Amino acid sequence: MGMALSLGRRGLGRVWPNPNVGCVIVRPCENGGRVIGRGWTADGGRPHAETRALDSIDAAGATAYVTLEPCAHHAKTPPCVDALIAANVSRVVIATGDPDPRVAGKGIAILRAAGIDVMIGVREDEARVDMAGFLLRITENRPLVTLKLASSFDGRIAAATGESKWITGPDARRKVHAMRAAHDAVLVGAGTVRADDPTLTVREMGAVRQPVRIVASGRLDMGAANLLATINYAPLWLCHGANVDAQKWVDQGAKSLPCDLQGREIDPVDMMHKLAAAGLTRVFCEGGGSLAASLLGAGLVDEIVGFTAGIVLGAEGTPSIGAMGLDRLADAPRFDLVETTRIGADIMHRWRRALLYAT
Amino acid sequence: MGMALSLGRRGLGRVWPNPNVGCVIVRPCENGGRVIGRGWTADGGRPHAETRALDSIDAAGATAYVTLEPCAHHAKTPPCVDALIAANVSRVVIATGDPDPRVAGKGIAILRAAGIDVMIGVREDEARVDMAGFLLRITENRPLVTLKLASSFDGRIAAATGESKWITGPDARRKVHAMRAAHDAVLVGAGTVRADDPTLTVREMGAVRQPVRIVASGRLDMGAANLLATINYAPLWLCHGANVDAQKWVDQGAKSLPCDLQGREIDPVDMMHKLAAAGLTRVFCEGGGSLAASLLGAGLVDEIVGFTAGIVLGAEGTPSIGAMGLDRLADAPRFDLVETTRIGADIMHRWRRALLYAT
Repeated sequence: MGMALSLGRRGLGRVWPNPNVGCVIVRPCENGGRVIGRGWTADGGRPHAETRALDSIDAAGATAYVTLEPCAHHAKTPPCVDALIAANVSRVVIATGDPDPRVAGKGIAILRAAGIDVMIGVREDEARVDMAGFLLRITENRPLVTLKLASSFDGRIAAATGESKWITGPDARRKVHAMRAAHDAVLVGAGTVRADDPTLTVREMGAVRQPVRIVASGRLDMGAANLLATINYAPLWLCHGANVDAQKWVDQGAKSLPCDLQGREIDPVDMMHKLAAAGLTRVFCEGGGSLAASLLGAGLVDEIVGFTAGIVLGAEGTPSIGAMGLDRLADAPRFDLVETTRIGADIMHRWRRALLYAT
Repeated sequence: MGMALSLGRRGLGRVWPNPNVGCVIVRPCENGGRVIGRGWTADGGRPHAETRALDSIDAAGATAYVTLEPCAHHAKTPPCVDALIAANVSRVVIATGDPDPRVAGKGIAILRAAGIDVMIGVREDEARVDMAGFLLRITENRPLVTLKLASSFDGRIAAATGESKWITGPDARRKVHAMRAAHDAVLVGAGTVRADDPTLTVREMGAVRQPVRIVASGRLDMGAANLLATINYAPLWLCHGANVDAQKWVDQGAKSLPCDLQGREIDPVDMMHKLAAAGLTRVFCEGGGSLAASLLGAGLVDEIVGFTAGIVLGAEGTPSIGAMGLDRLADAPRFDLVETTRIGADIMHRWRRALLYAT
């Protein structure tokens, strides 16, 4: 199952709206078993991991390890349970169930009805972390949100003058590009676009599937020269107030996603519902401070990743997180540490929302 | 020498105004050598490491490894070079020279004149880090300053309401007590005393020598109930404007250190000169934000230690570092990463001033 999980992670950021599943086919033998097939969800979501693992092998009597309950419904591909039954496997070991109502236990029932021995719950916690984006889209109608902040030792993302290039070093920036590539989309607020005119593409990582670039802007009151200049390279989606005319942006190739407003800002809950409806499972938010505070305040942030540099900018610098309106320390959002490590001259620290992945 | 350095570190925070030296006596033998004596500077600074290592052993023909050039002058103890010569050691290996003008090469010269083989510069960089407080006091007339900040993920030390207990967890707080114990003194600003009424003692670490508690306050406009209540347990020093009458504090047992002012605040450079003159070699500053910014702005901070919790407080929270008045990112103080690690539910990250310890 460890190998299947590892294969499944290859699909992070590449298979939406489908889950990033991994599958390993093992032929039992005297010394435990021999791997005869391996597969993972292909880019774009098809073919599925099971189909790829079973391709061109004789799996009769073998065991299939799969990180998610195999699908039981005809969608754009035939059901994977049919492929497993046709391959005559004798045992299927599953990490976690698929909450999609078209599957939700049906996959397991069909396998068992076909006389296949099914075991479920093996390394389930890890699988639920790896596929959290897909699971949240099904169960909470929103994508997983990772919030990234690169700041000074004292939590500032720019000096008083607005200068922000570069607080963290080249190794941290390269790591950010790898993280973008492992998400379906990169999200920023309009203030960040105004301040930085970013491209938000994945660079220097070899040929990779580019994530969707999303800008959240109540009134679309920004320029976006670099985002528009690269629109044939990676999609640009705009989450904006429904009362704003986005036609000139659409004419230039952007996709318009009208969202509810909260005052003058985008309602973050509605925005996430819209992004889930558009198929996204994993969103990487890179700020700025107002959007970050809005997402955190709505309880929509699942992971936070800090890059901290050994530089001190002082209280006049731009804060990494905007106003939160908290009255009590006990109301502040809390996260559990996943890891802290050195990245070049900076540190990276990753935290995960407490209780998110409880099964 | 590694063992001598390790022994020397036992004296951190306990030997001021003397250096925290370590010494190991090795009898050469076929397999390299056998340790026959070990010593480190005793609490309070006397006896010295060499004297303790040579105590009750026959060191004739042996090699002495010592982290600092042995003293050559009669102070409150006889010179260590005399002790080494009297013990008839044949070789002395030294990590780094003593810049104290009463020693500064004289120790080495006297040993060589006595026919002893002397080698210097072995693991010198490590020795200079370990004894940085003593070296800075001699060469720059100020103690080493470690700045500690315990903050939220977004660099806040208190919520908008002022609530700050507890952002970081019990393991981080215990680590802070261990760090206090490894410094000669703990320093805070008057604002921190007003907000928290702290005790600033070392607790739950077994019987340890208590560091001096220092409050920097231009006008002594604060209460300090807990500091005064514990004054028989640990000294209390007040750095205040020379125009302020500190008599009522002195009457209660505090020590008065009149300092120059910069506007209404203490001049940090003059304060550090006064603390060095009083014998301090290692000062542990625990904030608040204004004092931290003042020390950083004056280039007086040698190490910064961050404890970061997985909690987000938002921009209304109290910033860990006050206003710095920086115009350009290039002017911001920069530090090199020493380590980052998990401490309970929080992370600790230590940084050191770039180029500080270059020899």
